[in-house]
Amino acid sequence: MGRVYNFSAGPAALPVAVLERARDEMLDYQGSGMSVMEMSHRSKKYLGIIQHAEAMLRSLMGISDDYEVLFQQGGATLQFAMVPMNLIVDPKGETADFILTGSWSKKAMKEAKKFFAQTRVAASTEEVQFTRIPLQDELRLNPDAVYVHMTSNNTIYGTEFHYTPDTGKVPLVADMSSNVLSRVVDVNRFGLIYAGAQKNLGPSGVTVVIIRKDLMGRNANLPLMLDYKAQAAEQSMLNTPPTYAIYILGLVLDWVKDQGGVLGIEQRNVRQAKRLYEVIDRTGFYHCPNQPDSRSRMNVPFTLKKPELTDTFLAESTKAGLVTLKGHRSVGGMRASLYNAMPDEGVEALVSFMIDFERRYG
Amino acid sequence: MGRVYNFSAGPAALPVAVLERARDEMLDYQGSGMSVMEMSHRSKKYLGIIQHAEAMLRSLMGISDDYEVLFQQGGATLQFAMVPMNLIVDPKGETADFILTGSWSKKAMKEAKKFFAQTRVAASTEEVQFTRIPLQDELRLNPDAVYVHMTSNNTIYGTEFHYTPDTGKVPLVADMSSNVLSRVVDVNRFGLIYAGAQKNLGPSGVTVVIIRKDLMGRNANLPLMLDYKAQAAEQSMLNTPPTYAIYILGLVLDWVKDQGGVLGIEQRNVRQAKRLYEVIDRTGFYHCPNQPDSRSRMNVPFTLKKPELTDTFLAESTKAGLVTLKGHRSVGGMRASLYNAMPDEGVEALVSFMIDFERRYG
Repeated sequence: MGRVYNFSAGPAALPVAVLERARDEMLDYQGSGMSVMEMSHRSKKYLGIIQHAEAMLRSLMGISDDYEVLFQQGGATLQFAMVPMNLIVDPKGETADFILTGSWSKKAMKEAKKFFAQTRVAASTEEVQFTRIPLQDELRLNPDAVYVHMTSNNTIYGTEFHYTPDTGKVPLVADMSSNVLSRVVDVNRFGLIYAGAQKNLGPSGVTVVIIRKDLMGRNANLPLMLDYKAQAAEQSMLNTPPTYAIYILGLVLDWVKDQGGVLGIEQRNVRQAKRLYEVIDRTGFYHCPNQPDSRSRMNVPFTLKKPELTDTFLAESTKAGLVTLKGHRSVGGMRASLYNAMPDEGVEALVSFMIDFERRYG
Repeated sequence: MGRVYNFSAGPAALPVAVLERARDEMLDYQGSGMSVMEMSHRSKKYLGIIQHAEAMLRSLMGISDDYEVLFQQGGATLQFAMVPMNLIVDPKGETADFILTGSWSKKAMKEAKKFFAQTRVAASTEEVQFTRIPLQDELRLNPDAVYVHMTSNNTIYGTEFHYTPDTGKVPLVADMSSNVLSRVVDVNRFGLIYAGAQKNLGPSGVTVVIIRKDLMGRNANLPLMLDYKAQAAEQSMLNTPPTYAIYILGLVLDWVKDQGGVLGIEQRNVRQAKRLYEVIDRTGFYHCPNQPDSRSRMNVPFTLKKPELTDTFLAESTKAGLVTLKGHRSVGGMRASLYNAMPDEGVEALVSFMIDFERRYG
């Protein structure tokens, strides 16, 4: 079988150019006589790789010197704990606000509850099955909160923030795992951004943390690996970082630059999502439950008017080389994830299949 | 430049056969039409990969069903904290014993001190600059300790335990990062074994934890990612694991089996270490400070009788394709790491170079 179009929600498709370069350099990275995997993380060659990755991310996202960029491990789930561990000084007196827009933001709050006497819900759309994102004026924010937590894109429900909440002086903390680098974002509006790499940035096993420097160092005596300040002091090399994952991340960032940077990528994402939602909304044969102004460009869930055809849809699309389209078990139906690496051809192939499927079964 | 012989202390050389297979499968893993990096961790293909890795490790190390095998992130340094977080129930009343044989065991104790009111030193060879491993009858063990911690091989000082301490009923916890799978070990003698992969197992970014089941679940309310029991309940897939690193780990384990398993590997390691130490001890031109019965098979530190020749040695050996031989900054001189993937030819090339260097400069 040749390459397929992979609509996985994560780990997800990577640019072919990145994989080809990784393949070609596997046994000998740029004349070093070894793979990046075999390289001491303290070697000059490897320092070049990790510093390049950080510089590229800073340049692409416009990250100022007021922020540290860290390469961590443990995914977003470990950040759910690290954020309160690092930001809370008085666990009994302080609280944080959570904007609940899906399973992941609920998990983030549940984990934070292990560290706070109390957490607060600033807004939730659970009563409409998370089919929309709350508006700014629906947020009931506590001006004394240590931080406000949001999930900028919801992979399971397929909704996305198309605005950045104004939280006043309270730092905004965002889990951007599933839409980082997919759209232009003003980093200065955030206190802390974290993102597991395995959707838009690279392979699983590395988590990017962008943190405003004044938010670090509030607590002494944290476990070393969980202390943003200790990690920043060692440029994410407090111990051996996930060297190969960071190398691939750097290659992905080079590729993003070649696509016209984040703006170029965003334009493509807007175009692709529009194309797919139009086909979904066209006749009623397909259905997306989410409110139009809240729909995600990254994860597009849809069901069939005739749900008994779902297995047929999945079997035939897989046969056509359109894979991992099965919806999340909590939502059902289909989900097409259109992360940055999805080429226009993949989306065209999907919509052609969908139109044809509808013609045959509609 | 062709492939070099890489004596890095970690990340370290990988078997060429493993790298070739990873290269060949980079764009299409076994007809899936995608890279392993792009694969959903919940897909059947990927479940096959992670289950194979666990089964291979169990088979190669003889791990019984009394133990869980976990694939974690964060390296040994995170385990320094996770072990006390999971094993201590009463931080004020309990303590643990530490056998100090080098920098890493000291770091493990320092990290544990964040969780215990008190830690205990069961033995230390710091007064002889860690040039030897304490004997069994030098261990002053506390029968009420929650666990005894040891570092089975010391990458910086180049010493190694050639026996397994008898700790009675107190669980023995071993950081085996730098000699796991290099020698036959009776896992049943240990309560918990952990090892960062980047020396003998694969790339950095994955840490193997082998834990006796009865040691899990002592503490509720731990951060999810740091809870062995929660991780075991989800077969290390509580969230997205470092999928590619685990895939490479599986390929390395296949390769170990092809070498005659751990016993075959151990015989090779014994032979290679013997060959190198003989050349070091031959005339006094080279010098290894460590007591013969404590010398590591994995990391061989040596200095020159004429220390002013050190830079020349390093420059000439690098030119000869023998790289990353520089000693750790705290020890100086040279260090040749002979992990499992080092072929006999690499050791032969090194000793030939050393004999020739001595002939020319001795």
